[in-house]
Amino acid sequence: MEIEVLEGVFDANEIIAKENRALIEDGGLFMMNLMASPGAGKTSFIMRTIKGLEGKVSVAVIEGDIAGKVDSERIAGAGVPTIQINTGGSCHLEAKQVNTALNRMDLSGVELVIVENVGNLVCPAEFKLGEDLKVMILSVAEGDDKPLKYPLMFSESHVLIVNKIDLIPHTDFDMERLEETVRKMNPHVEIFKLSCRTGEGIECWIDWLEKRIREKQ
Amino acid sequence: MEIEVLEGVFDANEIIAKENRALIEDGGLFMMNLMASPGAGKTSFIMRTIKGLEGKVSVAVIEGDIAGKVDSERIAGAGVPTIQINTGGSCHLEAKQVNTALNRMDLSGVELVIVENVGNLVCPAEFKLGEDLKVMILSVAEGDDKPLKYPLMFSESHVLIVNKIDLIPHTDFDMERLEETVRKMNPHVEIFKLSCRTGEGIECWIDWLEKRIREKQ
Repeated sequence: MEIEVLEGVFDANEIIAKENRALIEDGGLFMMNLMASPGAGKTSFIMRTIKGLEGKVSVAVIEGDIAGKVDSERIAGAGVPTIQINTGGSCHLEAKQVNTALNRMDLSGVELVIVENVGNLVCPAEFKLGEDLKVMILSVAEGDDKPLKYPLMFSESHVLIVNKIDLIPHTDFDMERLEETVRKMNPHVEIFKLSCRTGEGIECWIDWLEKRIREKQ
Repeated sequence: MEIEVLEGVFDANEIIAKENRALIEDGGLFMMNLMASPGAGKTSFIMRTIKGLEGKVSVAVIEGDIAGKVDSERIAGAGVPTIQINTGGSCHLEAKQVNTALNRMDLSGVELVIVENVGNLVCPAEFKLGEDLKVMILSVAEGDDKPLKYPLMFSESHVLIVNKIDLIPHTDFDMERLEETVRKMNPHVEIFKLSCRTGEGIECWIDWLEKRIREKQ
């Protein structure tokens, strides 16, 4: 009985995710779904990405949170169109919410839409939003053993950002072990190692992302 | 329609949580539900707690994970009875799973049952397990702004463990701001600041916990 309900939810989500794809394609947009644990650095990463693409790619942001608007205020401060979705308790974004946001925002001139998902390494991986790219962040402070515990997120993501590399000397984090585990689960994943705090490694990510956006256009 | 289904799930959970309470009371046990984001340090915290209570309080552990048994193997290595629950995708433990575990374990002589919930700051807060104490961990690396984004977890927890305080000098974490925000949402919360890596601050927590367990006995 429970399983039937869940399948219903997933099917409905799939249909609206396809609608979102059509909106994205018709608008000549590129949409990125950004997922991570709470505190892995999603918002700082978005700020760095906006800054890195300044004058090259115009960005809009859809902010997903359980409650509050701390992040959207921070991002709006960077001068990009931002819309806040409060899920009111739900631990992930669904295609429907992103659909409402896409329809409400003025996307003329926009090339990249970044969706910041709710901080959670589990459920967001199960819900397609109609994105071109699934990006996940793992912070060094979370430890190198996370792929085995949250396999779906690590297998589904096209890009893994390892953030807070400036903390490596102060932790027991083993980058080699992480990469080995992740590549076994997801051989085609792109891995970028960076620090949103110091800026180290950001350039590589920005160059790669810009290339992906241009390839699509 | 959806809301009805959800209420059904919560009601069913509540009934089994009460059964768990009866099991706990009849067995003269104390049960702690430990919740946190992935990588906040739940397992290290359990290891420190087991070690701190050695020779004083006998412990058993129920390990909840989406997949894998990395943590339960680590804890079983410390010589305490451990049972692993794999939720198979679900992002939180439910009372039913804890009930099965309680019934399967040999709890004779055990005084404290620690339940390590799935790494997630959202859904675990919504599901009662029949516990005496809800303990959450926030790692310094996650940032001091988390209470506003995950209000239910911070309001529901009896104890907030701020872990990885050894990282404070390498981050922008503001302890005063965190405490102020949390106390507004949850005036009676007990806050312990510690580092499972260095051991700093562990003693205070152990003393407090032992006192709570004895008070109940």
